[in-house]
Amino acid sequence: MNAQQLYEQIRRKKSFLCVGLDSDINKLPAHLQRYQHPLLAFNKAIVDATAPYSVACKPNLAFYEACGAHGWAQLEETVRYVRRRYPDMLIIADAKRGDIGNTSRLYAEAFFKTMDVDAVTLSPYMGRDTVQPFLEYPGRWAVLLALTSNPSASDFELTVGADGKMLYERVLETSMQWGTPSNTMYVVGATQADMLANVRRIAPNHFLLVPGVGEQGGSLREVARSGMNSRCGLLVSSSRAIIFADGGENFAAAAGSKAREMQEQMAACLR
Amino acid sequence: MNAQQLYEQIRRKKSFLCVGLDSDINKLPAHLQRYQHPLLAFNKAIVDATAPYSVACKPNLAFYEACGAHGWAQLEETVRYVRRRYPDMLIIADAKRGDIGNTSRLYAEAFFKTMDVDAVTLSPYMGRDTVQPFLEYPGRWAVLLALTSNPSASDFELTVGADGKMLYERVLETSMQWGTPSNTMYVVGATQADMLANVRRIAPNHFLLVPGVGEQGGSLREVARSGMNSRCGLLVSSSRAIIFADGGENFAAAAGSKAREMQEQMAACLR
Repeated sequence: MNAQQLYEQIRRKKSFLCVGLDSDINKLPAHLQRYQHPLLAFNKAIVDATAPYSVACKPNLAFYEACGAHGWAQLEETVRYVRRRYPDMLIIADAKRGDIGNTSRLYAEAFFKTMDVDAVTLSPYMGRDTVQPFLEYPGRWAVLLALTSNPSASDFELTVGADGKMLYERVLETSMQWGTPSNTMYVVGATQADMLANVRRIAPNHFLLVPGVGEQGGSLREVARSGMNSRCGLLVSSSRAIIFADGGENFAAAAGSKAREMQEQMAACLR
Repeated sequence: MNAQQLYEQIRRKKSFLCVGLDSDINKLPAHLQRYQHPLLAFNKAIVDATAPYSVACKPNLAFYEACGAHGWAQLEETVRYVRRRYPDMLIIADAKRGDIGNTSRLYAEAFFKTMDVDAVTLSPYMGRDTVQPFLEYPGRWAVLLALTSNPSASDFELTVGADGKMLYERVLETSMQWGTPSNTMYVVGATQADMLANVRRIAPNHFLLVPGVGEQGGSLREVARSGMNSRCGLLVSSSRAIIFADGGENFAAAAGSKAREMQEQMAACLR
């Protein structure tokens, strides 16, 4: 899905919601645990319930890898299901991969060919060699970690360089030269509005993928005020608050309600 | 496998060789391509041929993920095979994962419980939150990217901070406070001997996992001189030069010969 199509979806659905499919097997409703493919059954129901209110979904690989090859297969099936049923949905593999050379090329193949998602999150530590192979697929996206919302982001991301710039600022400025706003996005945590505003200043035209709204204390209105550009330019991701809104048989309807609630707040921000 | 056992293996085998199972499906010998599980068949033969000369093996996840769930299953089978057949072999999942909080805990579970490897490579970008869950498994290892050997390592790893230290130096110094030399290793590229010596100065007691010898221009003798400590403290990884030493039916014997050649050079370094 290219940038134009994504902008169009945001306008049509009045939403910039990304539903995080952090489908932790230990937290799934009890009745699903008996299924042969519990992650897949859960994901299908969640996507069906939330698709009217969201433009993207974002499975985090950890939750599938914890179930081994069986988990990986259910992730592949989830992607196939979303592709077939919701062709206008952006699918982001939250994989935070980062390797180099031939290995990076194979990762790009794994996600863009074998699994066929639209976007993959990447760690920038090893530099351009990590990202380049992902930029060679038209209509696909590299989503780089820039500024994350966890406490230990300060260990390295906020390190001040000899030039007075923090590492995340350097990551933004350097990597913006590798791709374009049509094939690169950035992960920016929602917890600090002033830093989000700073990211938007450095990267005025890129999509920012903002997790942590509704879970880690970020407020949607704050995020919209600090991070939006003239074409929106935001994907706000929420996972636990939506997918585990209800832990019982009613989980899908509850997820739908929660997604709708967020979409309504987003519609107000988009006015 | 704990540090003591690993030191013991190095002494016994007179080797600090780690065989990189970068089993690229596109480069496998033609006769294996007809197998139902070509990656597994290849890996079994490679490990059988090289085990007498190596103390560790290191599958890189990209090459398995490129084959989807079928690839992941063959990786799991490979690990089970090595565990059963070579209980003294350290198994490193070269996954370069890096996430936070609950997600990081699930990654640790994926690799240390579900897949049951001894060690996982991790990217330090997001700080301590990424690494901590991996340090809570006795006898297992977090292997942090510090200084890599690719050209674009200079994009961020070599950035000089306001304190005059490069990012990789800060990564070393900071992360050494999270764990111990018994549960943390560092990935250090082999291409620049002076930097390897600098890493060894900062981290005198940690194992260093050094890729790039024999492939990216690093010389084994240089690496041993700059990186060894009194108990060796090195794992030198080689993949393509060993596993693709011969592209035909003779691939396993050729891999064995190449591994033996490297082991003999290592024995000389260990004297």
